[in-house]
Amino acid sequence: MKAVINIYLKEGVLDPQGKATHHALGSLGFNGVSDVRIGKQIVLQLDAKGKTEAEEKVREMTETLLANTVIEDYTIEIL
Amino acid sequence: MKAVINIYLKEGVLDPQGKATHHALGSLGFNGVSDVRIGKQIVLQLDAKGKTEAEEKVREMTETLLANTVIEDYTIEIL
Repeated sequence: MKAVINIYLKEGVLDPQGKATHHALGSLGFNGVSDVRIGKQIVLQLDAKGKTEAEEKVREMTETLLANTVIEDYTIEIL
Repeated sequence: MKAVINIYLKEGVLDPQGKATHHALGSLGFNGVSDVRIGKQIVLQLDAKGKTEAEEKVREMTETLLANTVIEDYTIEIL
């Protein structure tokens, strides 16, 4: 079973990597961009008996290790 | 207009960050995970007249700056 976890900084948390990318896009002549946010996408292959079990497992992994829930939000998708 | 770009390493390219995460999950007792790959998700806010123009712009940005197309693949979604 495949799980896709998107982890991104919460609204209001400064994103220096996004800011730098935004600035670089401007320097290269790409105008009209008003915001850039950069997050992580983690793709897991895991064994599970069903979607519900897979999602539960992945949520626990994300809360424990993958995301820093103080400053990050996440979404989980089981495929 | 909002654009979501997922950038991930091509098949066969070593992903040390994914390997380390896989190992860490194992150490924490999360078994049954057979693969972990870590990519980037970039969310852009941009001005464009339509979806087609937005996608064209974003593709150019991605090819020029955001992705390293030698080792990375990407997908673009315009919302």
